[in-house]
Amino acid sequence: MIRVGVIGATGYAGAELVRILHGHPETELTILTSRQYAGIPINRVYPSFNGILDTVCEEFSMDAVCEKADLIFTALPHKIPMEIVPDLLAKGKRVVDFSADFRFKNAIVYEAHYQPHTSAYLLEKAVYGLSEIYTDEIKTAGVVGNAGCYPTSVMLPLIPLLKAGIIDEKTIICDSKSGVSGAGRSPNLSSLYCEAAESFKAYKVAAHRHNPEINEILSMQAGKAVSVTFVPHLVPMSRGMLTTTYGSLAKPVDSDEIRECIASFYKGRSFVRLCPDNQMPNTLHVRGSNYCDIGFTLDKLNNRLILISVIDNLVKGAAGQAVQNMNIMNGLDETTGLEFVPYPI
Amino acid sequence: MIRVGVIGATGYAGAELVRILHGHPETELTILTSRQYAGIPINRVYPSFNGILDTVCEEFSMDAVCEKADLIFTALPHKIPMEIVPDLLAKGKRVVDFSADFRFKNAIVYEAHYQPHTSAYLLEKAVYGLSEIYTDEIKTAGVVGNAGCYPTSVMLPLIPLLKAGIIDEKTIICDSKSGVSGAGRSPNLSSLYCEAAESFKAYKVAAHRHNPEINEILSMQAGKAVSVTFVPHLVPMSRGMLTTTYGSLAKPVDSDEIRECIASFYKGRSFVRLCPDNQMPNTLHVRGSNYCDIGFTLDKLNNRLILISVIDNLVKGAAGQAVQNMNIMNGLDETTGLEFVPYPI
Amino acid sequence: MIRVGVIGATGYAGAELVRILHGHPETELTILTSRQYAGIPINRVYPSFNGILDTVCEEFSMDAVCEKADLIFTALPHKIPMEIVPDLLAKGKRVVDFSADFRFKNAIVYEAHYQPHTSAYLLEKAVYGLSEIYTDEIKTAGVVGNAGCYPTSVMLPLIPLLKAGIIDEKTIICDSKSGVSGAGRSPNLSSLYCEAAESFKAYKVAAHRHNPEINEILSMQAGKAVSVTFVPHLVPMSRGMLTTTYGSLAKPVDSDEIRECIASFYKGRSFVRLCPDNQMPNTLHVRGSNYCDIGFTLDKLNNRLILISVIDNLVKGAAGQAVQNMNIMNGLDETTGLEFVPYPI
Amino acid sequence: MIRVGVIGATGYAGAELVRILHGHPETELTILTSRQYAGIPINRVYPSFNGILDTVCEEFSMDAVCEKADLIFTALPHKIPMEIVPDLLAKGKRVVDFSADFRFKNAIVYEAHYQPHTSAYLLEKAVYGLSEIYTDEIKTAGVVGNAGCYPTSVMLPLIPLLKAGIIDEKTIICDSKSGVSGAGRSPNLSSLYCEAAESFKAYKVAAHRHNPEINEILSMQAGKAVSVTFVPHLVPMSRGMLTTTYGSLAKPVDSDEIRECIASFYKGRSFVRLCPDNQMPNTLHVRGSNYCDIGFTLDKLNNRLILISVIDNLVKGAAGQAVQNMNIMNGLDETTGLEFVPYPI
Repeated sequence: MIRVGVIGATGYAGAELVRILHGHPETELTILTSRQYAGIPINRVYPSFNGILDTVCEEFSMDAVCEKADLIFTALPHKIPMEIVPDLLAKGKRVVDFSADFRFKNAIVYEAHYQPHTSAYLLEKAVYGLSEIYTDEIKTAGVVGNAGCYPTSVMLPLIPLLKAGIIDEKTIICDSKSGVSGAGRSPNLSSLYCEAAESFKAYKVAAHRHNPEINEILSMQAGKAVSVTFVPHLVPMSRGMLTTTYGSLAKPVDSDEIRECIASFYKGRSFVRLCPDNQMPNTLHVRGSNYCDIGFTLDKLNNRLILISVIDNLVKGAAGQAVQNMNIMNGLDETTGLEFVPYPI
Repeated sequence: MIRVGVIGATGYAGAELVRILHGHPETELTILTSRQYAGIPINRVYPSFNGILDTVCEEFSMDAVCEKADLIFTALPHKIPMEIVPDLLAKGKRVVDFSADFRFKNAIVYEAHYQPHTSAYLLEKAVYGLSEIYTDEIKTAGVVGNAGCYPTSVMLPLIPLLKAGIIDEKTIICDSKSGVSGAGRSPNLSSLYCEAAESFKAYKVAAHRHNPEINEILSMQAGKAVSVTFVPHLVPMSRGMLTTTYGSLAKPVDSDEIRECIASFYKGRSFVRLCPDNQMPNTLHVRGSNYCDIGFTLDKLNNRLILISVIDNLVKGAAGQAVQNMNIMNGLDETTGLEFVPYPI
Repeated sequence: MIRVGVIGATGYAGAELVRILHGHPETELTILTSRQYAGIPINRVYPSFNGILDTVCEEFSMDAVCEKADLIFTALPHKIPMEIVPDLLAKGKRVVDFSADFRFKNAIVYEAHYQPHTSAYLLEKAVYGLSEIYTDEIKTAGVVGNAGCYPTSVMLPLIPLLKAGIIDEKTIICDSKSGVSGAGRSPNLSSLYCEAAESFKAYKVAAHRHNPEINEILSMQAGKAVSVTFVPHLVPMSRGMLTTTYGSLAKPVDSDEIRECIASFYKGRSFVRLCPDNQMPNTLHVRGSNYCDIGFTLDKLNNRLILISVIDNLVKGAAGQAVQNMNIMNGLDETTGLEFVPYPI
Repeated sequence: MIRVGVIGATGYAGAELVRILHGHPETELTILTSRQYAGIPINRVYPSFNGILDTVCEEFSMDAVCEKADLIFTALPHKIPMEIVPDLLAKGKRVVDFSADFRFKNAIVYEAHYQPHTSAYLLEKAVYGLSEIYTDEIKTAGVVGNAGCYPTSVMLPLIPLLKAGIIDEKTIICDSKSGVSGAGRSPNLSSLYCEAAESFKAYKVAAHRHNPEINEILSMQAGKAVSVTFVPHLVPMSRGMLTTTYGSLAKPVDSDEIRECIASFYKGRSFVRLCPDNQMPNTLHVRGSNYCDIGFTLDKLNNRLILISVIDNLVKGAAGQAVQNMNIMNGLDETTGLEFVPYPI
């Protein structure tokens, strides 16, 4: 049994992580921390856990965490992880971090979009936590920078096609749509029910911090500079994320070749599902699960490929992928504890 | 392993049942039938099942069902079950039926609200499938008439208090609220998104067919005639049901006694959760799970008890309770395969 | 033209009031105040108003308000109005107040549920702003305590029946359901989209501050003590409120007599619509309008009357009724500026 | 007063049209037809109209319509209008048609995406009902082919920029999102609440029939062939449509020039609102109104312009624009009867 701790257990991603870890057959959930709810049992914060889990949330203490856990999930806003992860690593712990602090190789890019990085020396060794892509590196990683939700939905369908030279990297446009839970649990005006319901809008247009994250990883994967246009939108639903990606074909291919390219790339990987010919992805079909469903259409008239991918932003986009990474780090089957069947509705 | 079949696998309750049975450690799901989708794999009807289950739905055939399954779930509209269940029983099968056909002891009451009953002779032996109440009878039942969703939410909190003589049975009013999935998957005007969203309404006021079901069972449990006023409402959400029940106190009791009455009655039963003092039930806290959460308040000024109960109408109100009944019928722990942790959101 | 000012223009009720007053043919909207958005044009706070209204919100100033407006709407949390209304009245202004501060005749009841009342001497002259009931008193009122949203939905159907002695006042139970906008625009956890969506719950069970308001007014109307059991619930929708009221019949009446009782009571009053025989009220049918739709059913088996009423909580439950009261105060037709046709969907 | 009739009054667009025409100061609504609800008053079909309008819907009859109305709105599925409009015109009536039947100049394109056109000779004279673009032609039109909802949202922001040569016509991608009401009132599986809620999906990817409509009109406006990639998506909300359009800059311009280009093009046109600098369009801000809000961002890194436009699909995307066209046809101010202030929430 892996002794695991969750730092920041009461945000939406943290709570979803607690839900998943509670049912994981190879982990023992030994410590939950929360600044806001220290001293309060997790089931008073989320009554869903009544009768299931009543661990009392604690203030974060390095000593307590290190004593009780060997693998630590840090589900915190950026900036805090860079301050505590070095100590965790120094004490021999392994870490999966949910923030952006360990996602970038290039500290300058990070600092241009976040703030000065106080542990930049760790970036070289940190592994980007996009499970299907960096599997080998994750196995031995000390700290994994869990991939962002938007980047996960954007990159899983794109990477095989970029690597195969099928899509023209200068033409990529990613139009993403996210449920409201992506904004977290902190009360703010635009997350209110009455502001979000019957409302659809774009936000941080071509200015979202996941854009440089996408560009850096795609460039590394493609072996050349990739800069995508990225526009996120807010959907009146709790969970779910869909990205529609557009790109011109770099060479003449038909639908079968595209299908084969993606299918063979993800062969043996359970969580990427390529939709059958007459279906298209729908956030409802992956809700509550760790799947990423991918579909595509060729717009032959305009020589463009249209890729559509969906994930549950709190699962494959956060807590689920974090556990998948933990599984890989520990030599478990990557699906262990993650075999949630999405509800039919 | 129990060989199980689902007759009517493609309605919402049927599909939810398939989801649950797929993950059940003691069952083998051997046959799915569907009139509308015969010949089509279940994952083409519900793409959530892609990569998980691709059983082809068949037209119902008595021979095929009896050959492949030993326990049969009939998730069909009323009237059809009464026609096929006798044959299933005759062939030594056991049945959990989702319709009203085997819920009533009194055929006259059934016929007053449904239609002539062609298997009325089975009603005496049929067991009402409210798992926590008829546990012993369910163990050996041939056919279980799975409790209706509204009746489940209404009766679980009421029965202990009626039995204890705490609530005046002549004063009971049940104001119920259900998500839209209760109306099923057949397209009809009032289930359309644009008709249901931003809409709240009562329907079948004091005229719903679950009312006589409630009255019959409560009368048997209380040992005297009970007739409740029952008003269902439609809530703009997919899943979930909440019932607010009002009744005058039949004798002076305080909150502790009420709490103790309910708590002791359900001691050892995992799926009934009594809310702690400062919490009240919320459909979100049981969504996707088999829990029934119960809370209450004493309106001392008016000498009334207010009971609040929530369930997921597709789980404890349908497919989950059906599997719970199957577990009981087979000597398994009633929670087997049903330990879903409700999502934090 | 009536010169009107809105104190507290940027909450949901205030903004709805601005929307209505902007289109009112007999008013000139001369001043908007907002503590939070002072210095900001109303259309930057609510971009719906772009191209329509760009009045800059001001900090509240007694002098500025009194100079610019003759009728003042105070859409503020309770406690503040009791501090400023006396001065407004002293300067010869008339006031429609949205808070509870001027709704009670009995200061002791107010103080038991709110806080000490610093202008209790005004309560005797203040008029309760339930337009259809206190029409004559409103005509000459100095300050109108606009009726609460729940009380409006509860009392409009009940008052005719109580006055006619049809309903037993000792048996009244009001089960109310409100959209999320009733909680206002201040960010708080339970108003977040992810907390409210797919969620239905009761709150402040038999402990809501609208309960004593209802009891006081109903007692005055009935001419004897009335104490109702009142339970509010939260519905996942933005606007709308439905109340289901239960009461035993005090004398034998049939449906026609009940219909006649309500219809004749509200004869000539445009905003109370009695549903035809085969329809029941639905919040969608009054959304955005000042209507209160009423339906009913006799539960003959249990000798109970079930009343169902719906309003838009921000219109008839707040801003619309406030304008209706203003119309009455100024000798206008009560429907002036309020003839919104609810959207078909 | 213009005597107007609505053929197909009980679909969502038809009913919205009835709502608008009822309040229009210059029209008299003389006849409503409905195949499904013939003989039934409109307020029994849409109880929102109770107390407001109780016109009985009739079966369509050419004689009755021509006797009672001078301007006829045909809110019908395509194919039926092409059969009845010739007769209406022959009798001297003017028509605003909601279907695709009179939107195309090129019958071959129409026939490739719909069916054989039986009144193709009318296409040359028919005017495309995009009010702000074809204003002059609409003034004298006999039949106006009211612009589609998606095309309206796509083209209003694009046309000024295409005409100014600012955007490269070979690079245009339109990612559109629509509320569920766009699918109409006919019950079908994908419009059910439980299928649409918590669901976001693309549909008819690069295969929607509004794509050739967009291409034809844009080509005419740009004076050269324009072929856009168009992908519609379904949003879990009733009303509202947002289109995100991407295109490479054809020449170096800055934000001010883009703003000026759009602003000057729509100078004096009330229903196009260009968002201020720090705001972006939101469907909630136009809900229930005839506005089209436009915002934009320059993605300088990639030399792309991102245009965002929102409309209410039932108003500016259907009934509202139809009335705007009627106003123009009759020499009225285009805003007559359409000055709805969108609700703050």
